[in-house]
Amino acid sequence: MALIDIINHKKLGLALSTGEIQEFAAAAADLNAPDYQLAALLMAIRLNGMDARETAELTLAMAHTGDMLSPDVGGVAADKHSTGGVGDTTTLILGPLVAACGGKVLKMSGRGLGHTGGTIDKLESIPGFQTELPEEEFLRITREVGCCVVGQTGELAPADKRLYALRDVTGTVDSIPLIASSIMSKKLAGGAQAIVLDVKCGSGALMKTREDSLLLARAMVDIGRRNGRRMSALITRMDEPLGRLVGNALEVREAIEILSGHVQGPLLKVALALGSRMLMLSGLADSAGQAEEALKQALQEGRGLLKLAQMIQAQGGDARVCEDTGLLPQAKHQKDLLAPASGWFSRMDTQQAGEAARMLGAGRWQKDDVIDPAVGYMMLKRLGDRVEAGEAMARLFYNDHTLLMQAEAALTGSFTLSPEPFSPAPWILAHIDQNGKETSLT
Amino acid sequence: MALIDIINHKKLGLALSTGEIQEFAAAAADLNAPDYQLAALLMAIRLNGMDARETAELTLAMAHTGDMLSPDVGGVAADKHSTGGVGDTTTLILGPLVAACGGKVLKMSGRGLGHTGGTIDKLESIPGFQTELPEEEFLRITREVGCCVVGQTGELAPADKRLYALRDVTGTVDSIPLIASSIMSKKLAGGAQAIVLDVKCGSGALMKTREDSLLLARAMVDIGRRNGRRMSALITRMDEPLGRLVGNALEVREAIEILSGHVQGPLLKVALALGSRMLMLSGLADSAGQAEEALKQALQEGRGLLKLAQMIQAQGGDARVCEDTGLLPQAKHQKDLLAPASGWFSRMDTQQAGEAARMLGAGRWQKDDVIDPAVGYMMLKRLGDRVEAGEAMARLFYNDHTLLMQAEAALTGSFTLSPEPFSPAPWILAHIDQNGKETSLT
Repeated sequence: MALIDIINHKKLGLALSTGEIQEFAAAAADLNAPDYQLAALLMAIRLNGMDARETAELTLAMAHTGDMLSPDVGGVAADKHSTGGVGDTTTLILGPLVAACGGKVLKMSGRGLGHTGGTIDKLESIPGFQTELPEEEFLRITREVGCCVVGQTGELAPADKRLYALRDVTGTVDSIPLIASSIMSKKLAGGAQAIVLDVKCGSGALMKTREDSLLLARAMVDIGRRNGRRMSALITRMDEPLGRLVGNALEVREAIEILSGHVQGPLLKVALALGSRMLMLSGLADSAGQAEEALKQALQEGRGLLKLAQMIQAQGGDARVCEDTGLLPQAKHQKDLLAPASGWFSRMDTQQAGEAARMLGAGRWQKDDVIDPAVGYMMLKRLGDRVEAGEAMARLFYNDHTLLMQAEAALTGSFTLSPEPFSPAPWILAHIDQNGKETSLT
Repeated sequence: MALIDIINHKKLGLALSTGEIQEFAAAAADLNAPDYQLAALLMAIRLNGMDARETAELTLAMAHTGDMLSPDVGGVAADKHSTGGVGDTTTLILGPLVAACGGKVLKMSGRGLGHTGGTIDKLESIPGFQTELPEEEFLRITREVGCCVVGQTGELAPADKRLYALRDVTGTVDSIPLIASSIMSKKLAGGAQAIVLDVKCGSGALMKTREDSLLLARAMVDIGRRNGRRMSALITRMDEPLGRLVGNALEVREAIEILSGHVQGPLLKVALALGSRMLMLSGLADSAGQAEEALKQALQEGRGLLKLAQMIQAQGGDARVCEDTGLLPQAKHQKDLLAPASGWFSRMDTQQAGEAARMLGAGRWQKDDVIDPAVGYMMLKRLGDRVEAGEAMARLFYNDHTLLMQAEAALTGSFTLSPEPFSPAPWILAHIDQNGKETSLT
């Protein structure tokens, strides 16, 4: 089977056979197969689609191009994936809370990408924290502490790695089957038995509409189910930052504040919803209500913060940050961003707001850029709030004045104030269960 | 303007702006622009199309990536292009006849491609014939003799050269705007002022249906008109070889036999129709009827054969072949292919029949293959003929018995005999004039 025949079949809108899908994945992992043929096939898939069978088969085939892990973590190995948001640091809250309730959360995470942050970058803002650990070591931490966050290890899904890079430069990122198979190939290879998905929806997310978010969630749940994994997906709102703080050390600070019981809000709400699904999939709770109660109790008793401290210590970091967030990197300067007029905070271009954090130095433009862990901003208003002219809407934390100027303009430009009152949608829009059944939560 | 933005626009089905088209052509000629981005854009164009303006602009932009010739040939520089057929050697007949009527035919031709033959390969079967001549030399021959056939000279449309090679390996050959712009970019760069197109239609052609052939013809005529060229296109039938002979030296022999006045048939008919359009576009006749009469008179008086002999001599070839075709390369062996049953010759897979000639050695599988000029076959029956079991349908001329076996099987497999009588369509199906107006000729 030549790649050109596979391209021609997809170009004509045909479903690819199992053999063709396997050939495609093998070619993606074979450096002798030319990029230009993969690029043409990716565009044909972007424009003519793939059905559920093709997508599930591609995912498994990509996973099998590299190592397939079967982590022994002393329980159901649970993982969570967010499609990427701004101020979206649920992992650092739900991981410790689920661990405190007996779960085993082994999260293989990535670095920041585009306008969204990455858990690895956030954790590395903690002095000494190591995200590259030998396999025996991260398995031991997961078993003993109950949660561990590491960078992708070994050669997980090398076919996906190549296609991911190619998609970025060929206009084929925005394909639901390709997004779903990319995410899930790494999850299948990583060996998670229970996978909770947080599919973000809105101006700061890859999926801008509820409809597309549901399609992506269903595609990923379907892939997991077809490959024997326990799956659950939430569709959550991402049309403003989820937490109050945006930036690497700032988001660690917010997670610590939440686990200390000092702060409520949507970030905790979404973390509890995701964590309760993870507890259920891990066989540690019978209902979402029961699971959420257990997590809240762990929170109130400080057992979540304790788990976070244990995890930080086990991974070589300075666990004293959990008592004193002042030990985290701090930006030298801060500046309040004032409302130019009065009105209701009715819309936020959250992608642009994420770019503003990147402009300050919190994210990368190129793979090898060095990020500034301290910079970012705090949102002082939320969508739906009344704002008076001259009132502070956000506080920028920065180290470089030139970068501040760009970021300030981008963040200001991301806000829309309207003369009419505005009510934002609920934070959790829908749930997709193991069998693809949707429960609308709005 | 980054290439990725252009890819994204076409992916979304938008028409590309003039600036975007120019950027695309420039990238195609720029070796720093990556193949994978061009491949993705080609597939997006294949699936989402290009309108007439985009197509005409792309053609001109590709032409301008290389030399733009303005050949001084002492009259209207006329060229002709066939989209490729089997036994399709009209150039060697109409070129000399048009020259004999005062025309100036400067044909820049290609080598054989896939299952179709190329005029350059055919002419090189004449001992000594040169197809690579300095520009001053081929202009002088065109001025003095009235016809000259050369390989593509210098750097004509390098952007097209790269895209053409990429399309071949990315499943994006079958795009009417891309085919039209590829053909016409070289014609615009070559500087022809009058261009006659022979768009082949049927089982041996790139375009299998009348509808697609008309779309391609209109697209090419439109490109030429928008760029100030005099245009005319015929849609001709290619569901069996046009001439009786298929193969390089064999086709030269048939052209000589026709110009000697000894042979009639569809090859002459189509050559006269194309030649008469060329005479009209060159301002040397007022009507197709008048033009055809002039060409027929030149044929009867032997002036066409004389022009062919003069051209061969001017290009270094042995012009005695015009008196004695036995001086052309001859295959060692021949074998008749017999009908396995009786019936009406109702269908021919002419692409497969073209492949049969390639299997014998008449064409190339890879760019650097050496062809055998002597081999090929003669069709002894035409579509619509009654055939009796055991009667010879074709005569194969070969040098290698192993190659014969493959070719014989392919050629036999290309014939369909039916119990019902069959009437083939006329050879000339339609004419598209300068303004895109269609005259149906069926």
